[in-house]
Amino acid sequence: MAGGESTARRDRRARSEHETEFARIVAFSDGVIAIAITLLVLNLDVPDVHSNDGEALARALADLGPHLFAYALSFAVVGRLWLVHHRFFATLQGFDGRLMIANLTYLALIVLVPFASDLLGTYGENEVAVMTYAAILGLAALVNVLMISYAMREDLVSAADRRATAPFATARALVTPGVFLVSIPVALVSPVAAQLIWLLAFVSVRFQRRAGSI
Amino acid sequence: MAGGESTARRDRRARSEHETEFARIVAFSDGVIAIAITLLVLNLDVPDVHSNDGEALARALADLGPHLFAYALSFAVVGRLWLVHHRFFATLQGFDGRLMIANLTYLALIVLVPFASDLLGTYGENEVAVMTYAAILGLAALVNVLMISYAMREDLVSAADRRATAPFATARALVTPGVFLVSIPVALVSPVAAQLIWLLAFVSVRFQRRAGSI
Amino acid sequence: MAGGESTARRDRRARSEHETEFARIVAFSDGVIAIAITLLVLNLDVPDVHSNDGEALARALADLGPHLFAYALSFAVVGRLWLVHHRFFATLQGFDGRLMIANLTYLALIVLVPFASDLLGTYGENEVAVMTYAAILGLAALVNVLMISYAMREDLVSAADRRATAPFATARALVTPGVFLVSIPVALVSPVAAQLIWLLAFVSVRFQRRAGSI
Amino acid sequence: MAGGESTARRDRRARSEHETEFARIVAFSDGVIAIAITLLVLNLDVPDVHSNDGEALARALADLGPHLFAYALSFAVVGRLWLVHHRFFATLQGFDGRLMIANLTYLALIVLVPFASDLLGTYGENEVAVMTYAAILGLAALVNVLMISYAMREDLVSAADRRATAPFATARALVTPGVFLVSIPVALVSPVAAQLIWLLAFVSVRFQRRAGSI
Repeated sequence: MAGGESTARRDRRARSEHETEFARIVAFSDGVIAIAITLLVLNLDVPDVHSNDGEALARALADLGPHLFAYALSFAVVGRLWLVHHRFFATLQGFDGRLMIANLTYLALIVLVPFASDLLGTYGENEVAVMTYAAILGLAALVNVLMISYAMREDLVSAADRRATAPFATARALVTPGVFLVSIPVALVSPVAAQLIWLLAFVSVRFQRRAGSI
Repeated sequence: MAGGESTARRDRRARSEHETEFARIVAFSDGVIAIAITLLVLNLDVPDVHSNDGEALARALADLGPHLFAYALSFAVVGRLWLVHHRFFATLQGFDGRLMIANLTYLALIVLVPFASDLLGTYGENEVAVMTYAAILGLAALVNVLMISYAMREDLVSAADRRATAPFATARALVTPGVFLVSIPVALVSPVAAQLIWLLAFVSVRFQRRAGSI
Repeated sequence: MAGGESTARRDRRARSEHETEFARIVAFSDGVIAIAITLLVLNLDVPDVHSNDGEALARALADLGPHLFAYALSFAVVGRLWLVHHRFFATLQGFDGRLMIANLTYLALIVLVPFASDLLGTYGENEVAVMTYAAILGLAALVNVLMISYAMREDLVSAADRRATAPFATARALVTPGVFLVSIPVALVSPVAAQLIWLLAFVSVRFQRRAGSI
Repeated sequence: MAGGESTARRDRRARSEHETEFARIVAFSDGVIAIAITLLVLNLDVPDVHSNDGEALARALADLGPHLFAYALSFAVVGRLWLVHHRFFATLQGFDGRLMIANLTYLALIVLVPFASDLLGTYGENEVAVMTYAAILGLAALVNVLMISYAMREDLVSAADRRATAPFATARALVTPGVFLVSIPVALVSPVAAQLIWLLAFVSVRFQRRAGSI
């Protein structure tokens, strides 16, 4: 029966199936990232104080400060990674098994963020917590850059988008993962300095964006 | 190669890519809001009583009253905010980086609602819990109004929808965030009065809606 | 500017916007139901036994029996409610504010199912737990029937689907919510009998389906 | 009114409705799988040590090793099952009530994975934990094969995809569920050997894939 189809019709079929599959991968990735970012709220535990004591509750909420910082930071980082991921996927004209596996690895690292964030909120001045957070986020950002440069090399990025996507596959793109990974030894000396470096990285990323690309 | 495309074809491509990107932002936002609203159920803990004692279980469930109130209120507020958000996004003909960041900020506040709701359910008569809840919901509603007026000013709302959207970018639109924010000092005197004000705000919002707009 | 659009073009625009909005409501509902059904797994707690003692772990897992029963029942009921909900929404040619509010109410009840299911798994032989479960599921099924009959009355169901949808808006459709609500007083006498009635209801619903409708 | 529609128009309507319904089933399945895979992170608990003691935190994180292994394994298995599921659904030209129920059963098993994974992470050397994990994953993989062979038999797979899908409905397709199910008695003797068998199964599945099919 398939033999009865004209080539044109089969092509249309193939393209439409391909688009459906592609849409599902995008939707699945978005779903996982959306859930991971929302699970961050579970790290904020309602404190346990005497129920009518306003001052005690205010103090207990103030003690959540480090957890709120970790929440805001993680929400911003994952939100930004999602933006880059979705812009990258919008430029793809195809994908293969390796990109699929790389994408799943990327998602597996993103899903670890609520855990890393809880660790950072609980032990923000402990170098091991800061190093773990930097390692997970740095690896996620690194896999992202590797995915983009692989897609560029394998011609999976549509011709029209190659110029705009190129900077994300060069050494300059390694700034974001690099900053996280460089902060790991820094945290050994000063956990606070490592976290300041992350904030600087964000500013630099913004600057890069202003300067032209994506 | 891209140079070979006719202008019309490139326009169609751009529009279709733009729509795909837009659809992903909408889907991501909806996903985050859907997850946040569903996580509200985790605030309802199964009570711990002797397993065959019906009366004890009934009393323990009755004690969940304040948690059920917080659940119903938060579900209604987030449900309504979702409605406004989705109507607003349906009117957009474009978006830019700032709107994207504003939207992520909005989502970061919505994701805090399960925490705020748990706080309100646990410490409903404590002024600090009521003020925290009002601050988070008030900020979310405020960011919403700011997003809409920004989109109006930057011509991101499609011409056909400008008239219907206009009221949501005027001083009158500040009623919802205003009520939440005004209830903060009220809660200092009476947490119960602050919560009554919220319920009144809902009635007023309904009235506004009946009176014409969205 | 909008005045410049031809009527036909405006109609197409309106229809397309309407479809986009509709798709978002459907996606949001599906998202909430998918999350609620998946959160059911959080009710299964890994037991606490000595780590190398296989027999103790086997016994502890066997003790999870009532929780597994509640999991399977709730997954089946919510799965079935989702099927009916999605078939009903597929027949809609329009919706209004009331249907939107009814749908949010319906979702608010579905979101309570993980809590109700945890209660049933923990206190399966306690009449109050069984009654609470029956009340939440019965109300959800009732709101569902009310939504369908409202949509029929207000002509929101497309002409082509009215015949197939009609049985879901008649007294016969009240069987499912009715069974849950009738089981409430039964549970006062025998919690086990009430649960048997639920299983019978499922068989009857299957029979109805075989007999013709949706 | 429906009587007034031409046959062709009614056909188009039916097809479009059918596609909408189908898209919702796919989206719901993807949603459930995405949530289940993301909930895996909740099995990683932030350890409880003195807040400034880096070495103690490092040791406590190292103790999470078995949980991280369970996380990586479960993410990979569910990720792979999702890939197969989404490729299979892309080949469907129709579905019926039985396939729907089989799909819900499949999802109910996938939703159990976070529990099974927590069990494996907590009691990785306990034969009962390993057997439970193997049983749940083996059943999920088995239901998957049964769905595919049912769809082949009932002509629900589109003609163009029958050849590519066929290997997934033969005895060879039973390798994956078979390996999990065979590992159950092996775990009685050696839980470690059972887990090695799972890793081998993955290699074999990869090999099969390279060798041609899907």
